[in-house]
Amino acid sequence: MTEDRIDGPPDLAAFKRAFRRHAAGVAAITSLKADGTPVGFTATSLASLAAVPPLATFNMARTASAWPAIMENDHVIIHMLGVRNRALAEKLSGPAEQRFVGDHWEPGPYGIPVLRGVTTWMVGRIIERVSVHNNAVVVVQIEGGGMGEDDEALLYHERTYRAPGTAID
Amino acid sequence: MTEDRIDGPPDLAAFKRAFRRHAAGVAAITSLKADGTPVGFTATSLASLAAVPPLATFNMARTASAWPAIMENDHVIIHMLGVRNRALAEKLSGPAEQRFVGDHWEPGPYGIPVLRGVTTWMVGRIIERVSVHNNAVVVVQIEGGGMGEDDEALLYHERTYRAPGTAID
Repeated sequence: MTEDRIDGPPDLAAFKRAFRRHAAGVAAITSLKADGTPVGFTATSLASLAAVPPLATFNMARTASAWPAIMENDHVIIHMLGVRNRALAEKLSGPAEQRFVGDHWEPGPYGIPVLRGVTTWMVGRIIERVSVHNNAVVVVQIEGGGMGEDDEALLYHERTYRAPGTAID
Repeated sequence: MTEDRIDGPPDLAAFKRAFRRHAAGVAAITSLKADGTPVGFTATSLASLAAVPPLATFNMARTASAWPAIMENDHVIIHMLGVRNRALAEKLSGPAEQRFVGDHWEPGPYGIPVLRGVTTWMVGRIIERVSVHNNAVVVVQIEGGGMGEDDEALLYHERTYRAPGTAID
């Protein structure tokens, strides 16, 4: 058994222990400020909510650099990342002012950046922004999208980017 | 390039193509109806929302067998599953009336079932239920939890249960 000591109050310790043992797929979400500045970030919180109509959710801090754009723009583009997109994931989670420096994107629907080389992407219209303390759950309805070459899905687990492994019988 | 044909309207096709290329960790969520009946289900939508206070979200259909309990009970238990819990994942996503037949659980905090053999679990108090069409986003504040033996996190990807694979440099 792993010695999984985490300091802090019991609620926070339970939360940290649990999410340390949870694996998640990595998505990258982009949008555009009213002044035309592109914004984007990686998210491990992307989840489907329904298929009919097609709905998805993601979570973010309202202190994030991209939050003003998410507040003022009704559209986002959600990209699914493959293992070949690890450097892209690092770029989109690095310093905010560097995230769109380079040729790794191009303007897409509504002028919102489409990241190049991803496995697939969806255009979403924001239909709910639910504030909870200093965070938000964002609900989007998918309007369409595009796709790239297939690849293994990029995972984030135990603070490491990984590929999915073998099937479990 | 994979021939990834999906029939249907373009919004639904984009949604299906994208989530087919997304991997997710598998959690199991339990609660209790007012009459004491245990309920539970597997979720690939579990996501962290904040650490301070510790908040998490999951998504579900309001047509799900567990929805009445999620409406009337303010608490849930969220379990993180490891690869050794594949049979448990199938049990908790199988016929609703069979999910608590067996000795794979015991009553835990608030009388809510704790599933045996999981890697870790958290007790959560429901602080928001956001209805969107026929679905709901459920926001919980983590109060505490417990842990079991460590294991590789169970993933669901391409309709298959998997283990996480190698680290991507």
